[in-house]
Amino acid sequence: MSGSERQKMAAGDWYCCIDPELDALRDVARDAVHQHNTMPPAERGSLGPKLEKLFAEVAEGAFLEAPFHCAYGMNISLGRQVYLNAGCTILDTAPVRIGEGSMLGPGVHIYCAEHHKDLALRRAGLEIARPVDIGRDVWIGGGAIILGGVTIGDGAIVGAGAVVTRSVEAGATVVGNPARVLATR
Amino acid sequence: MSGSERQKMAAGDWYCCIDPELDALRDVARDAVHQHNTMPPAERGSLGPKLEKLFAEVAEGAFLEAPFHCAYGMNISLGRQVYLNAGCTILDTAPVRIGEGSMLGPGVHIYCAEHHKDLALRRAGLEIARPVDIGRDVWIGGGAIILGGVTIGDGAIVGAGAVVTRSVEAGATVVGNPARVLATR
Amino acid sequence: MSGSERQKMAAGDWYCCIDPELDALRDVARDAVHQHNTMPPAERGSLGPKLEKLFAEVAEGAFLEAPFHCAYGMNISLGRQVYLNAGCTILDTAPVRIGEGSMLGPGVHIYCAEHHKDLALRRAGLEIARPVDIGRDVWIGGGAIILGGVTIGDGAIVGAGAVVTRSVEAGATVVGNPARVLATR
Repeated sequence: MSGSERQKMAAGDWYCCIDPELDALRDVARDAVHQHNTMPPAERGSLGPKLEKLFAEVAEGAFLEAPFHCAYGMNISLGRQVYLNAGCTILDTAPVRIGEGSMLGPGVHIYCAEHHKDLALRRAGLEIARPVDIGRDVWIGGGAIILGGVTIGDGAIVGAGAVVTRSVEAGATVVGNPARVLATR
Repeated sequence: MSGSERQKMAAGDWYCCIDPELDALRDVARDAVHQHNTMPPAERGSLGPKLEKLFAEVAEGAFLEAPFHCAYGMNISLGRQVYLNAGCTILDTAPVRIGEGSMLGPGVHIYCAEHHKDLALRRAGLEIARPVDIGRDVWIGGGAIILGGVTIGDGAIVGAGAVVTRSVEAGATVVGNPARVLATR
Repeated sequence: MSGSERQKMAAGDWYCCIDPELDALRDVARDAVHQHNTMPPAERGSLGPKLEKLFAEVAEGAFLEAPFHCAYGMNISLGRQVYLNAGCTILDTAPVRIGEGSMLGPGVHIYCAEHHKDLALRRAGLEIARPVDIGRDVWIGGGAIILGGVTIGDGAIVGAGAVVTRSVEAGATVVGNPARVLATR
């Protein structure tokens, strides 16, 4: 495969995370996250200014409690009135879109990054990035974990502490580890 | 239903969380949490001064590691010698009482807040608040999640990472997601 | 049993955590953790200087994102190129060794500390400490919890959100709560 590691990451190919360009991008995100997490809430408002600039999209009324953590920031899109409670973490090696009106409870984690299962390749830093797409008016309970490649349909409900390894249909409710369907619309 | 949103919340009725009075109360809590989480530990002692003032009750010897997060603070009562390890989060839209001598491991989350399952009502900001009552000498393992409406009896043990959706009898041990009884007294 | 509480803790015997010597050690760790978590990332580099001094061993290339939390710090050994993502928590009442090249996702918690199951003894502050040994090239998914006494063999994979209560063989993959073997090498 040709191209930079960043290009391979963006294309959904295996790439090496030990890379000066990616290191520099992660440094930018660490600095923006640090600002968001340490500035007084009254000054921070809905989002630290560096994170707001870094994110791919921040629609009107989106609100991010502190602390927050992300890997790159540049791949995160927040729709209108999206709300992330304290302690949410997004490893946004691929695009993470959160649709209008969706609410994430405290400590929700989204992991686009996956290391290689082959030991030698993992040791060499190989990762792959899969996007996460969260629809509109989704309610994700606190402490839930969403893995890469997952799509969550409009109006779905994810129970607190669920580990979501597969996509969730619109209007469905999923709970447990791994998450299983409890109800459909 | 008549009354302010705050009154409905306190009464255990459905209320709208998009409300200036509730917004202002959450701002007060954010500021107190920020103080607790950023002040040097030697100055902070057992609890940041703003949180101590905000909580409904802080009995002698109660200790709160940092970081900590809460939604309002005003609904939290800590009994004597209660210990909360780092990263605990309490969404105290309703009263949360933690009895004397109880210990919460790192990252324990307590969620009194529940959004409406009906999509249109959820979008309109409707929530309901259910209290959480934790008895004396309870040991809650790290990473456990306690949902609203749950009562945990004296001396009970909640396993690390358990998701507690139902009340736990005194002296019982519960584990898993959802939490199930492993042993009774 | 004779000896100080610290000596009993180190020997793997029951000890009382309410103790001035242990209190003082925890104060040192709180201060080091606070430095790591509040200093600007560009200055912090791979590890806050106080944590680096406190840890039993920090080999070349080890990297710790912020925030991080530990109980004592002095019992933690990080091998070469070990990586801990944001929000990891280690209650290191006993030695915690993480081998070369191992990677911990965000919010991984390791708990060596166990309170007494007997209510009166737990109330008196009795705890026991069991070491955790993580081999080389292990990948621990975000949000996983590792309990005291667990050994994880070289090259093993722990799924995101797994609660690991038993040792894991080299090359195995475990998932779930409690963690169960999904695949062996």
